[in-house]
Amino acid sequence: MHEVAIIGDGYTAAELLRLIAGHDQMEVIMVTSTENIGININRLYPQLRSCYNLTCQATDLEQIKSRCEAVFLALPHGLSVPMVKELTRSGLKCVDLGADFRFQDVNIYQHFYEVRHEAPELLGEAVYGLPELYREKIKNAQIIANPGCFPTSAILPLAPLLQSGLIEPHGIVIDSKSGVTGAGKAMKPASHFCEVNEGIKAYGVGTHRHAPEIGQELSRAAGQKVGMIFTPHLVPMNRGILTTSYAQLRSGVSARQIREALEDRYRSEIFVQILEPGVFPHTKWVYGSNYIHIGIYADDASGNVILVSALDNLCKGASGQALQNMNLMLGIEETTGLHGMGVHP
Amino acid sequence: MHEVAIIGDGYTAAELLRLIAGHDQMEVIMVTSTENIGININRLYPQLRSCYNLTCQATDLEQIKSRCEAVFLALPHGLSVPMVKELTRSGLKCVDLGADFRFQDVNIYQHFYEVRHEAPELLGEAVYGLPELYREKIKNAQIIANPGCFPTSAILPLAPLLQSGLIEPHGIVIDSKSGVTGAGKAMKPASHFCEVNEGIKAYGVGTHRHAPEIGQELSRAAGQKVGMIFTPHLVPMNRGILTTSYAQLRSGVSARQIREALEDRYRSEIFVQILEPGVFPHTKWVYGSNYIHIGIYADDASGNVILVSALDNLCKGASGQALQNMNLMLGIEETTGLHGMGVHP
Amino acid sequence: MHEVAIIGDGYTAAELLRLIAGHDQMEVIMVTSTENIGININRLYPQLRSCYNLTCQATDLEQIKSRCEAVFLALPHGLSVPMVKELTRSGLKCVDLGADFRFQDVNIYQHFYEVRHEAPELLGEAVYGLPELYREKIKNAQIIANPGCFPTSAILPLAPLLQSGLIEPHGIVIDSKSGVTGAGKAMKPASHFCEVNEGIKAYGVGTHRHAPEIGQELSRAAGQKVGMIFTPHLVPMNRGILTTSYAQLRSGVSARQIREALEDRYRSEIFVQILEPGVFPHTKWVYGSNYIHIGIYADDASGNVILVSALDNLCKGASGQALQNMNLMLGIEETTGLHGMGVHP
Amino acid sequence: MHEVAIIGDGYTAAELLRLIAGHDQMEVIMVTSTENIGININRLYPQLRSCYNLTCQATDLEQIKSRCEAVFLALPHGLSVPMVKELTRSGLKCVDLGADFRFQDVNIYQHFYEVRHEAPELLGEAVYGLPELYREKIKNAQIIANPGCFPTSAILPLAPLLQSGLIEPHGIVIDSKSGVTGAGKAMKPASHFCEVNEGIKAYGVGTHRHAPEIGQELSRAAGQKVGMIFTPHLVPMNRGILTTSYAQLRSGVSARQIREALEDRYRSEIFVQILEPGVFPHTKWVYGSNYIHIGIYADDASGNVILVSALDNLCKGASGQALQNMNLMLGIEETTGLHGMGVHP
Repeated sequence: MHEVAIIGDGYTAAELLRLIAGHDQMEVIMVTSTENIGININRLYPQLRSCYNLTCQATDLEQIKSRCEAVFLALPHGLSVPMVKELTRSGLKCVDLGADFRFQDVNIYQHFYEVRHEAPELLGEAVYGLPELYREKIKNAQIIANPGCFPTSAILPLAPLLQSGLIEPHGIVIDSKSGVTGAGKAMKPASHFCEVNEGIKAYGVGTHRHAPEIGQELSRAAGQKVGMIFTPHLVPMNRGILTTSYAQLRSGVSARQIREALEDRYRSEIFVQILEPGVFPHTKWVYGSNYIHIGIYADDASGNVILVSALDNLCKGASGQALQNMNLMLGIEETTGLHGMGVHP
Repeated sequence: MHEVAIIGDGYTAAELLRLIAGHDQMEVIMVTSTENIGININRLYPQLRSCYNLTCQATDLEQIKSRCEAVFLALPHGLSVPMVKELTRSGLKCVDLGADFRFQDVNIYQHFYEVRHEAPELLGEAVYGLPELYREKIKNAQIIANPGCFPTSAILPLAPLLQSGLIEPHGIVIDSKSGVTGAGKAMKPASHFCEVNEGIKAYGVGTHRHAPEIGQELSRAAGQKVGMIFTPHLVPMNRGILTTSYAQLRSGVSARQIREALEDRYRSEIFVQILEPGVFPHTKWVYGSNYIHIGIYADDASGNVILVSALDNLCKGASGQALQNMNLMLGIEETTGLHGMGVHP
Repeated sequence: MHEVAIIGDGYTAAELLRLIAGHDQMEVIMVTSTENIGININRLYPQLRSCYNLTCQATDLEQIKSRCEAVFLALPHGLSVPMVKELTRSGLKCVDLGADFRFQDVNIYQHFYEVRHEAPELLGEAVYGLPELYREKIKNAQIIANPGCFPTSAILPLAPLLQSGLIEPHGIVIDSKSGVTGAGKAMKPASHFCEVNEGIKAYGVGTHRHAPEIGQELSRAAGQKVGMIFTPHLVPMNRGILTTSYAQLRSGVSARQIREALEDRYRSEIFVQILEPGVFPHTKWVYGSNYIHIGIYADDASGNVILVSALDNLCKGASGQALQNMNLMLGIEETTGLHGMGVHP
Repeated sequence: MHEVAIIGDGYTAAELLRLIAGHDQMEVIMVTSTENIGININRLYPQLRSCYNLTCQATDLEQIKSRCEAVFLALPHGLSVPMVKELTRSGLKCVDLGADFRFQDVNIYQHFYEVRHEAPELLGEAVYGLPELYREKIKNAQIIANPGCFPTSAILPLAPLLQSGLIEPHGIVIDSKSGVTGAGKAMKPASHFCEVNEGIKAYGVGTHRHAPEIGQELSRAAGQKVGMIFTPHLVPMNRGILTTSYAQLRSGVSARQIREALEDRYRSEIFVQILEPGVFPHTKWVYGSNYIHIGIYADDASGNVILVSALDNLCKGASGQALQNMNLMLGIEETTGLHGMGVHP
């Protein structure tokens, strides 16, 4: 049994606990907190009653190092860096669910997250944790930068097409719609039920922090700087991201090639489901599961390509993917603990 | 591997498929339909993609008898009777998710469901499938009448108190609130999104079919006819039932006895969770899981007892309970396939 | 044009502004705030753009007295008392939307609201602002205690039946379901979208502050202390209260008398709509309007009476009723500004 | 008092009734139906109780001609043509809320709506009913083609920028998100509560009928064929459309010019509200009102322009705009009956 700790007690921590409860080779033996020290996880998250009897404790790295083999960090950005530095120095494997290790260029991180990075030397070591793109590197990594929820939803459909030169690397529009758990458990006016329910709005228009993350990975796939714009929207639902990506067929490329490229690329990837022609995903189909569903529209006449992707922001968009990464790092079968299907209707 | 069939392709069938996909000793090898014959279950329920490759077929009892050991019937009332009769005659075990075998008195069934019962002789054989009340009988039964969703939510908190004479057997008020999956997949004006969303209403006021079912079981527990009234309400959510039951302490009984009785009764029942004093359940805590959470308020001064219970109407209120019953009938560990915790937030 | 001030800038203040924008004899010339001083009301409530150009200011009673004829107070409990005292001394009419003047017995107020009442001598002067019950007194009052949202929903259906002795004055169960605006604009964990959405829960079980308010008014109607229990529930919707009240026919009373009594009592009350037999209200029917819809079930055999009432907690449950009261106090036609119908679907 | 009829009894008819109830110079004296003949409008739409006492009747054009001055047609496409032909021949003014008169090119209509147009000669006479673009023509028209809900949301922000040559006339992406009332009252699987709630999906990807309508009007504004793509999404809410439009600054144009152009264009248009820099609309702000709110992002460096617009699909997107058009046609002040502000929170 692999014994792990979770640093943090927010929604992604709760989702890790839910998933790992069904894992037969991994056990969470510690959850740390700043605000809820001494409180039983069952009071914070009554949905976990009967499966856990853990009390939140203060973050004590010495204790973690002595008792755990690996750590999930589910913290606000900026806080993970010193912890990851110390934990990995002692040989623990770390999956960071925050943004601290996602950027290859420390300046982009510092600009968008408005914080100084305290260990830029680790950025080269960290692996961007998208198993479908970087599986082999992940297996040997000690630090995983778990991708953002929006980036996961946009990179998986777009990267293969850019990599194989099927779509134009500029003029890409990524329009995402997210449930409210994406904003976390902290109270903010924008998370008040009455400000969200029965309406929809855009936010972070032109300025969202996930834009440079998406840009980094799409450019890496394309082998050149990609021109794209990203706008997230807040939808009155707890979970789910739907991302509608618009691109143009490259000259000489046919619509059929788009579908073939994605079907070929993901045929053996259990968590990436390419839907039949004419079928477009509903986020509820992947609710609580680690799947991403992708629907494809491509039109030879206009050259328009529309990719619609759906995932659960807490699962494939965060904790499910983190567990997938951790499985790979620890040499466990990748899908362990992740077999649950979407809870629908 | 126990091979089973599901007769019916509505929401409770989909939930059975979801649960049994995680079961290591049971496999669904057939799903039958009337409206969707020839359609792959993955097109009907894309959340099940990658786990099933079954095509809905017409209901052919001969084939079921030759290939299956047991059957789940998820049909509108009235349709199960002849099928159950034939299937059990051939030795198959049946869990009927409808109302056809729930009543001991055939007249009550015929009055409330407005249909003639075609095999009243089987009513004595059928066991009411509440494992926490009738576990031993279920193990030996060939026909299980799977309880209604509202009845499950009301009987589990109230029956032990009536049985032990702690509350008055009259003047009981049961006020339930249900998500919309309870009304099934069929299109009805009352299921139109715009008629449900952002509002709440009562329905079946004074006349709902689950009232006599609750009455039967509460009276059985009390050993006398219980006086009760039941009103269901429709809440803008997919899943979940919250039932608020009001009763009076019997003379000489203290508030403390109520809590003790329920804690004692359900201490070893994994799926029944008695919440701490002052904690009352939220239906989202049991979303997608087979648990029922019960919160207790009892007041010596006024004699008021309020029991608030929450379950997922598709799971402990239908398919989860059906699987729990089937496990018992087939001699499989009762909780197999039912370990999933509530998907929350 | 009657010039008025609103003290407070929360949801009930916003609703007052919305309603009074359509009033041809009343104008809001001042809104006061503690947290948003200097901020234009259009930034706080963009739905009011183009109709207002008011900046929130600090509460300056001298200025209010010199410029306004009447005042709406929309404040947390305890804060209104000294202001109302000073304002009425200067001849201004006050409608207090909080609880400070609702109780005839100061001890009940102090017990349930855990605050000392600083002007108990005014309680005798204040009129409980339910126009359908106390219209004449309201016309001549200087202080109106605007009723709570739950109490309005329960008193209007029950009071006439108690007053005329048609139902038993004990054993009454009042089960209410409310939208989230009832909890106000302040951020609380219980108002976080993800804690409310796609679920339902009870709260304040056995202890809610509206219970003694309902008890006071029902007892006043019955002419004796009424035995009742009240439980509120939180429903995933912004607006709306549905209250299901359970009572017993008094011996010798027929079901038909219940309907006749309510129809007779409210025939000339525009805002109280008694629905046809078999019709029960949906809260969305009264969304944004000042109406209350009441559906009736009564059964001779069992003696059961079920009354289902629906109102908009921000409108007939708060600001709409406050405006109705203010109209009466200022000698304006009672329905002015309140003609809007329910926004549905 | 102008006496009018409404042909049709769906959601847009109900919204017309709601709005016209507050109109002091117009009265609905007749509502016609096919499915609900003989049923009182108050039973169909209890939110209208106390304001109407109309019974749905069969559509009798002779009676309409003899009693009414003007008619709103709220019908499925294809049905309006013969009625409008006959009614206008008799001098009645018609506002058609369907698609039958929206296209200048009858072939586009016939291709996308798959029905033969029975009076193409009237297309030249009909005026596209966007008052902010075609006010003078509307005043003198006899037939108004009331715009689609998505087109209204996209044309109002984009047309002025195309007309003045500030954005590129190709590569425009229009990503819309709609509430479910947009799909009408008819029962469809896609309108079932459980298929919509707690999720989001795209539909009509690449093929939606509103695309050519938007294209027609944007091209008219640009004076050339515009290249654009439109994708609608279904959001779990009753009312509201949020449209996010992406365009590119034309060479030499600055971001500031975009804002100035829209502010100048709509300064005197009460129903079009250009929001302050950094503010983007929430659909709930315009709930139940005739306003459209537009937020602007434009960036000199990238040339990206993002316009986010919000309206109520039943109001400015349908019935509110229809009433605005009818007011203009009948010489009534344009905003009469349309002063209601957004019902929020």
